[in-house]
Amino acid sequence: MGSYKIAVLPGDGIGPEVVAEAVKVLSIVGKKFHHSFDLRYADFGGAAIDSSGVPFPPATQEVCMSSDAVLFGAVGGPKWDTLDPAIRPEKGLLALRKAAGAFANLRPAKLFSELADACYLRPDIVANGIDILVVRELIGDVYFGEPSGIEVRDGERVGFSNMIYAEHEIRRVAEVAFETAMKRGKRLCSVDKANVLAVSRLWREVVTEVAKGYPEVELSHMYVDNAAMQLVRNPAAFDVIVTGNLFGDILSDEAAAITGSIGMLPSASVGGANTPGLYEPVHGSAPDIAGQNLANPVATILSLAMLLRYSLNLSAEADAVEAAVAAVLAKGYRTGDIYRDGMKRVGCTEMGQLICDAV
Amino acid sequence: MGSYKIAVLPGDGIGPEVVAEAVKVLSIVGKKFHHSFDLRYADFGGAAIDSSGVPFPPATQEVCMSSDAVLFGAVGGPKWDTLDPAIRPEKGLLALRKAAGAFANLRPAKLFSELADACYLRPDIVANGIDILVVRELIGDVYFGEPSGIEVRDGERVGFSNMIYAEHEIRRVAEVAFETAMKRGKRLCSVDKANVLAVSRLWREVVTEVAKGYPEVELSHMYVDNAAMQLVRNPAAFDVIVTGNLFGDILSDEAAAITGSIGMLPSASVGGANTPGLYEPVHGSAPDIAGQNLANPVATILSLAMLLRYSLNLSAEADAVEAAVAAVLAKGYRTGDIYRDGMKRVGCTEMGQLICDAV
Ligand SMILES: CC(C)[C@H](C(=O)O)[C@@H](O)C(=O)O
Ligand SMILES: CC(C)[C@H](C(=O)O)[C@@H](O)C(=O)O
Repeated sequence: MGSYKIAVLPGDGIGPEVVAEAVKVLSIVGKKFHHSFDLRYADFGGAAIDSSGVPFPPATQEVCMSSDAVLFGAVGGPKWDTLDPAIRPEKGLLALRKAAGAFANLRPAKLFSELADACYLRPDIVANGIDILVVRELIGDVYFGEPSGIEVRDGERVGFSNMIYAEHEIRRVAEVAFETAMKRGKRLCSVDKANVLAVSRLWREVVTEVAKGYPEVELSHMYVDNAAMQLVRNPAAFDVIVTGNLFGDILSDEAAAITGSIGMLPSASVGGANTPGLYEPVHGSAPDIAGQNLANPVATILSLAMLLRYSLNLSAEADAVEAAVAAVLAKGYRTGDIYRDGMKRVGCTEMGQLICDAV
Repeated sequence: MGSYKIAVLPGDGIGPEVVAEAVKVLSIVGKKFHHSFDLRYADFGGAAIDSSGVPFPPATQEVCMSSDAVLFGAVGGPKWDTLDPAIRPEKGLLALRKAAGAFANLRPAKLFSELADACYLRPDIVANGIDILVVRELIGDVYFGEPSGIEVRDGERVGFSNMIYAEHEIRRVAEVAFETAMKRGKRLCSVDKANVLAVSRLWREVVTEVAKGYPEVELSHMYVDNAAMQLVRNPAAFDVIVTGNLFGDILSDEAAAITGSIGMLPSASVGGANTPGLYEPVHGSAPDIAGQNLANPVATILSLAMLLRYSLNLSAEADAVEAAVAAVLAKGYRTGDIYRDGMKRVGCTEMGQLICDAV
């Protein structure tokens, strides 16, 4: 029996809907396992821009940093797309990641056996399933590299963003990746573009150095263009992938898309000492279906399971949530995004309630 | 009846085998249409490193620059992977592209109807086929951006590569993309990461400006992570894609992989005034199957067709080559990479000969 502080940032688009279902699940978990969860709601993203002019207001930062973990939905939407980039919703997400020191973003891309027919690849290619974990570096790279800007040089505009990594930034995320690989299939593929980019050559050197501490893990290196190809040709060949922020953004979305279950995929961003872990669905804010009870809350509910497991060390509770999701899927309940003939179609709130009942 | 100078750079791995078949086809085209082709062979890539210590020797550059077009195979292989990056085979390819001023790389990703069952995606997703043309900027971006290097700062190594575009570099490739879209489905999707990167914000601004000159073309913008996803979820939605060098490297390989026909896909790199166009298969040097008569020469033969069409303005000749390829496929001949039960399996030289016979 414990007492925990959870910052809850619903965000924009379908964010509030899917977060509401995860919160319902959390309260059932609290009752069943006798924990008390102090839910601390705060504005974030577009919602925060509307209420206070900035996407990650100081009050929200305060709430997050004093919590044990942060659960959030999604940010962004057409309403804020024309704003100055400095105050767009995405900037808030980057600032939150940075403030939390969350340098390692864990994004599983898994083919749920109940949903094998939702997979976008030819059935024979995925006969052995897909179970990839992308470990994406999250607070470095060209996302934060300086100098960056647009300026006039020799009479024309020039735009530039610096792709930069320091040794310690590569080392710490590589360590997380090797540790994670040790708990899984012990195969790690590091993705870079070392045949062209200096920053990738350092990446490859440092990952190779870290590998010496993990002799049991089989390390391979792959160029990012080839990785984009192999994810399609033979996704079952991957266990853990480690890569930089930009390549990780692209490849984790590709891997998620392949499974056909993007509405099902959770993510965790961790790393800071004494800072909260961040938990969010892989999918975005999907403004086109927001407010219509059409969203799939499973990705957020599974993100909550990761939160219980990694930030609160409550593995029995996490297991219970994951088992409840599997049970509801096994009974044939599906939201629209994963619906196939013969299944039972439900909305976001019904899906959330079914999972609550199953916990 | 004309007379043309073609630089031929077989390169490494399967390069020499597939180029040999394309050259056979070219000589039949010469006989049939009464042209004379002056074939000017030159060392390139690993082969050039072995013979002269550098991947793109001055003699090869001289041959290329004084030719009407360059046909080449592929570069690279494990033998040269441990060399200093400054003299690796890939450096030669980048230097050749730069010397030729070839700023626009056209990479079709097409599902050949005869090979629809080789496609990696679920059949229902590609029922309407795939016919995407990626226009990739080829001589700018983080590939060539300065400053770039690895150096020690504050006691640790730091690697950096500058993602940079000047207005005129974006404008000229955007113009090629709009022109190409006008000759196709009139839909252009520009891919960037403008929600995070300053360089992408300039990219988006300039592409939007160029669009004013092409009111008939429907322009959309997409973030690169979403594009990596949409290529899997709904590839039929794309007509022409325009993007920078790095994103184009990744997305064009992903698009090619999806078709399942990477051994079939040609590419053209054009743009310089008074410099030759470069034509090469999309696939790499595949050292694992080199020298075993297993390679698929079709991508190189179709690259030759592009060479005839774009650099020499010989469209009837290009049509003849493309029709010959289609005819041979329709008769059921397949190299190992695209072989399926019930087809006739042939090697690289047999495939080349069959296409020659069909021209
Ligand atoms: C919204 C955007 C800034 C973000 C990113 O690029 O990191 C998103 O794509 C993600 O992957 O979480
Ligand atoms: C070999 C490498 C330098 C090259 C590139 O990245 O441009 C290749 O991947 C390609 O796409 O032609």
